[in-house]
Amino acid sequence: MAVYTEVDDDDLIEFCARYDLGEVLACKGIAEGVENSNYLLTLTTGPYILTLYEKRVDPADLPFFLGLMDHSAAAGVPCPRPIPADTGVVLQELAGRPCVLISFLPGMSPKRPKTFHCGEVGRALAEFHRANADFTGKRLNGLSVLNWRDLLNACGSDANQLRAGFSTDLAAELDQLELMWPNGLPSGVIHADLFPDNVFFRGRHLSGVIDFYFACNDSYAYDLAICLNAWCFESDNRFNLTKARQLLSEYGTVRTISEPEMLALPLLARGAAMRFLLTRLYDWLNTPEDALVVRKDPMEYWHKLRFHRAVSSPAEYGLGFK
Amino acid sequence: MAVYTEVDDDDLIEFCARYDLGEVLACKGIAEGVENSNYLLTLTTGPYILTLYEKRVDPADLPFFLGLMDHSAAAGVPCPRPIPADTGVVLQELAGRPCVLISFLPGMSPKRPKTFHCGEVGRALAEFHRANADFTGKRLNGLSVLNWRDLLNACGSDANQLRAGFSTDLAAELDQLELMWPNGLPSGVIHADLFPDNVFFRGRHLSGVIDFYFACNDSYAYDLAICLNAWCFESDNRFNLTKARQLLSEYGTVRTISEPEMLALPLLARGAAMRFLLTRLYDWLNTPEDALVVRKDPMEYWHKLRFHRAVSSPAEYGLGFK
Repeated sequence: MAVYTEVDDDDLIEFCARYDLGEVLACKGIAEGVENSNYLLTLTTGPYILTLYEKRVDPADLPFFLGLMDHSAAAGVPCPRPIPADTGVVLQELAGRPCVLISFLPGMSPKRPKTFHCGEVGRALAEFHRANADFTGKRLNGLSVLNWRDLLNACGSDANQLRAGFSTDLAAELDQLELMWPNGLPSGVIHADLFPDNVFFRGRHLSGVIDFYFACNDSYAYDLAICLNAWCFESDNRFNLTKARQLLSEYGTVRTISEPEMLALPLLARGAAMRFLLTRLYDWLNTPEDALVVRKDPMEYWHKLRFHRAVSSPAEYGLGFK
Repeated sequence: MAVYTEVDDDDLIEFCARYDLGEVLACKGIAEGVENSNYLLTLTTGPYILTLYEKRVDPADLPFFLGLMDHSAAAGVPCPRPIPADTGVVLQELAGRPCVLISFLPGMSPKRPKTFHCGEVGRALAEFHRANADFTGKRLNGLSVLNWRDLLNACGSDANQLRAGFSTDLAAELDQLELMWPNGLPSGVIHADLFPDNVFFRGRHLSGVIDFYFACNDSYAYDLAICLNAWCFESDNRFNLTKARQLLSEYGTVRTISEPEMLALPLLARGAAMRFLLTRLYDWLNTPEDALVVRKDPMEYWHKLRFHRAVSSPAEYGLGFK
């Protein structure tokens, strides 16, 4: 749940006058995104999303994110499109914050994804990869294997509050990941956060992909590994092979998963689990217990990590060699 | 900021099928109201507000609130209208909570009210009082003078955390209020919470009155006193006579403020200040300091209370006898 910055009504009217989109009818702070403040802004010409960037987003990254959104939308990815002001400039300022007006996408995020959702997501991910193969912007993945050690160290022995010996177990796991992490896999711009919250559906069809604020350059198969973790486990942390097979096979209809990518998948999935485990662990230890923000359980990702560690072949994800 | 209950997408689709209003296009949790979960629900036929009642609202009160909303809207008050399902029933259930679908009102709440806002609010308050003079529902004011002692006792000596001797000062003030509280003033259904958050404007004109969840039977002049406190003080807690005069005179164009009401106004305004002071004080003492919910400052209302205590005649609010 977000909305951190309050927008004064006079300031908002002045802001909207920068666009030829009509009068302000309403502006409601919405509980979407955790890094930014988001408003559903209703103008005479229809609904829009107004995003104000809070302090956790580096303003230097905004041209990459907004350029990527625009490039993706132009290439047919169903994602919001940043709307330039009448001056032609997309990035604006409001209430002392960088901000942007983006198009409103219909659809709802699935709360309990089913197999058909996983198929749609697999295909959309491949289309996102393909659509941005010619995108010229670059952004390092600041939450990749080389950054995990710092995160783990920042948690220190407090990790043991969640599980006896957790700090040591995580360090040992990280030793292995650092040692075995694959290089040279096909790479490009990845979404890096394609969780159900960030995908909209209308009925059985995917209607939107949002929240490009973790996008970066990394291997495509790592993005697939993130999705396997985010979409293909049940709430009791059991892996759902049917969902994984659907996600991977639909991905494959758009972009072929190469043999090195398949072979790397178990390790990438372990790494992807480690990445979300560590950020959740850090937030868990640094968010007051009684704060109203919902702390996400790091242990969910420990279970996922251990599942992937036991995987011996990509066939266990439903992948076969042709 | 609200949104406490998560609504599953399948449940939402089933809910919307109870109304002949088209397909669900989107549903965004909005940061509006503090007692309930509110969603901006976009259907094919347009936007609506979906309210889920959380535990702080007594379900037994819902027929009063919803009946009042419907009656007010029918009588021309610009307020949301509860929309009955195809069965004719307004009150529904979703995600295990009582809920209601209401119409969407355009407009924005003023963050820094100006004099013209106060005039519009005064007139709308009188129109609300007049529109509901024939409303047959009844609800006791559970936050009136007879309830304040319990609230103060529940805070106990912890009140002194905010100001040395505060607990004693408040008890002495309450002794006086209980002793002097007027009876027999013109009464009826009052809004009882007409703060800027609960009023929408389009440009210079009031376009909506929302949040009927404190409405009850009490004296009309007490509702005016609540508005004087909510609208006619500057952020440095100084009283703005111009705003008060505008609010009261515009009220008077619709419903005459009688002489007994005028004379009672300073005391009612002290009482109204005490009511919000006490609920804020209770919440202040019972909300963790680091919770993400914004605790409202009780001392703001102590300053207002002391202002009213020093008022010797209704002329100081800009009221004169004709």
